Amino acid sequence: MTATQTIALDVMGGDHGAQVVLPGAELSLVRHPDTHYILFGDEAVIRKELALHRGLAGKCDIVHTDVAISMDAKPSQALRQGRWKSSMWKAIEAVRDGDAEAVISAGNTGALMAMSKFILKTLPEIKRPAIAAIWPTVQSECIVLDVGANVGADAGQLIDFSMMGAAMARALFSHDRPSVGLLNIGVEEIKGLEEVRKAAGALRESDPPFDFRGFVEGDDVGQGVVDVVVTEGFSGNIAIKTAEGTAKQIAEYLRAAMTRSLLARIGAVLAQGAFRALKEKMDPRLSNGGVFLGLNGIVIKSHGGTDATGFASAIDLGYDMARSGLVERLAVDIATFHAALNITKSAQ
Amino acid sequence: MTATQTIALDVMGGDHGAQVVLPGAELSLVRHPDTHYILFGDEAVIRKELALHRGLAGKCDIVHTDVAISMDAKPSQALRQGRWKSSMWKAIEAVRDGDAEAVISAGNTGALMAMSKFILKTLPEIKRPAIAAIWPTVQSECIVLDVGANVGADAGQLIDFSMMGAAMARALFSHDRPSVGLLNIGVEEIKGLEEVRKAAGALRESDPPFDFRGFVEGDDVGQGVVDVVVTEGFSGNIAIKTAEGTAKQIAEYLRAAMTRSLLARIGAVLAQGAFRALKEKMDPRLSNGGVFLGLNGIVIKSHGGTDATGFASAIDLGYDMARSGLVERLAVDIATFHAALNITKSAQ
Repeated sequence: MTATQTIALDVMGGDHGAQVVLPGAELSLVRHPDTHYILFGDEAVIRKELALHRGLAGKCDIVHTDVAISMDAKPSQALRQGRWKSSMWKAIEAVRDGDAEAVISAGNTGALMAMSKFILKTLPEIKRPAIAAIWPTVQSECIVLDVGANVGADAGQLIDFSMMGAAMARALFSHDRPSVGLLNIGVEEIKGLEEVRKAAGALRESDPPFDFRGFVEGDDVGQGVVDVVVTEGFSGNIAIKTAEGTAKQIAEYLRAAMTRSLLARIGAVLAQGAFRALKEKMDPRLSNGGVFLGLNGIVIKSHGGTDATGFASAIDLGYDMARSGLVERLAVDIATFHAALNITKSAQ
Repeated sequence: MTATQTIALDVMGGDHGAQVVLPGAELSLVRHPDTHYILFGDEAVIRKELALHRGLAGKCDIVHTDVAISMDAKPSQALRQGRWKSSMWKAIEAVRDGDAEAVISAGNTGALMAMSKFILKTLPEIKRPAIAAIWPTVQSECIVLDVGANVGADAGQLIDFSMMGAAMARALFSHDRPSVGLLNIGVEEIKGLEEVRKAAGALRESDPPFDFRGFVEGDDVGQGVVDVVVTEGFSGNIAIKTAEGTAKQIAEYLRAAMTRSLLARIGAVLAQGAFRALKEKMDPRLSNGGVFLGLNGIVIKSHGGTDATGFASAIDLGYDMARSGLVERLAVDIATFHAALNITKSAQ
């Protein structure tokens, strides 16, 4: 555990590129001084920005690339234009080639997923990777997936997502047997999507490498009812964005309420320490970073519009995932459990 | 507009029955003194509770029923056991027979929908009713549908939901041309569910009786970007429950933050007026009530666990819907627009 962790950074990704990626890298390095970075992007841009971040001196290699994937390119366009030569492509290749343990990009999500699948390939038995997000709860945090890699998922894919999420929970929360719930619209067994019910049936009849808790509803997620919430990408994306939007909305209400009278303003000054703690608790930058699960390697997607604090959180996440041996553990889980599932299926 | 509004109440519905329904009716009556109620349920129970609510004297008729639908009955069970004779059934019949302009029930959602479809039938051209909810926004309120009547919806149904939501927005917000958005996972035209994209394409090429704004995402809803947000029932239910859960979660954070130090507690006392205003803004009881849209009559579903304040909100909603002539207006919209859509389709 004392070896250096090498992390590949797509410096050209995101709305702000090097101006967010490099200060973010400097922040994360303070927390994990054993990190080494490989920076992929325009060398002149990188050198200029590096000069402003002395903390990174001696901690980075630079790999110059000419092409940057634009934030609005379709995945197919990005593959055509960026294959072999873009900063995103090269950074992912570094993971495939064993030069880096994880790659972080704030670039175009569709392009990053398409290139990651192309370069790293999915794990055996996994047809579609998922994007997992960290969701703050009343208790601590949980993992929600898929938050948008795929639209729709059949029962088999939902079961794969459950395994993938459980492996990530083990890595992140150090629970040996994380609890997993399937997102549904009513906890009664009769309700909801057929594929969700089928997945629940199969999980109940088998012996998965996690604690399967059945169905959870939208309002259970933030209560921390389970460690891992599994759903297909359409509703998962809507759920996470709705939660973000609601938090923002309430923050606006709160600001308005606290400035509406002199007494309220005085009260807000006295309670400013409390408000600071609350703000931190609700800060979306601290849970920034979606993990692409189901690939032969660790890929972390940062929000495109985040700042250095947010990008540093995404790097931290990549660091934790790499340190915990996520991919290796997941491969073993899948091999074992898929075999067991097949036995269950053929015994029916 | 000076005639009495008669509203049918299923007194046996919900977790608390008459103990919530009757005080709720009394509260709503203060706001709308021209309301008259028909109370369906066990006459002895109703008379006992009525004696405690003098405000309702002379404002109610009672129709005795022997059967109450249990909160956990499946729709098919409820229909078998409650047909012709349950409080829920009889209350819906009152709307069909023109004895009441709206029915409010806090009972079993599946049973209420099944009976409503059976008794009232859907409007011409409408295959599936939807449940519409009122969602508080930074600006004021918007309407979200479907929040759980159906799992899945094809493009035609999403277009019907758009029309139904727009008709409700007209009734509720007095906008003549409400704005409508389809909930999706990315505002780019290429993204998201195929049926959602198909619905958007058809709406763009036609001339709907509302202002179609394309796609909205989960975080746009609470910002009040559009008056009406349209989605199928699985993701709609997850979205609304996620928003409720997030609001609850943040309220818990806030409470914890405000009691963590003496200064914070003093600040909270000074700002208590502000906190009261915030609490009211976030009070889910004030937006209680789902409207069943697409039926030949107005049916409002109240949360089963709500209290008198919440149930009164649901009655208010039924009153507003009835006053505005929602059903008649919607029938005209559907007839006109469906004809126009068919022209567009056949011209392609």
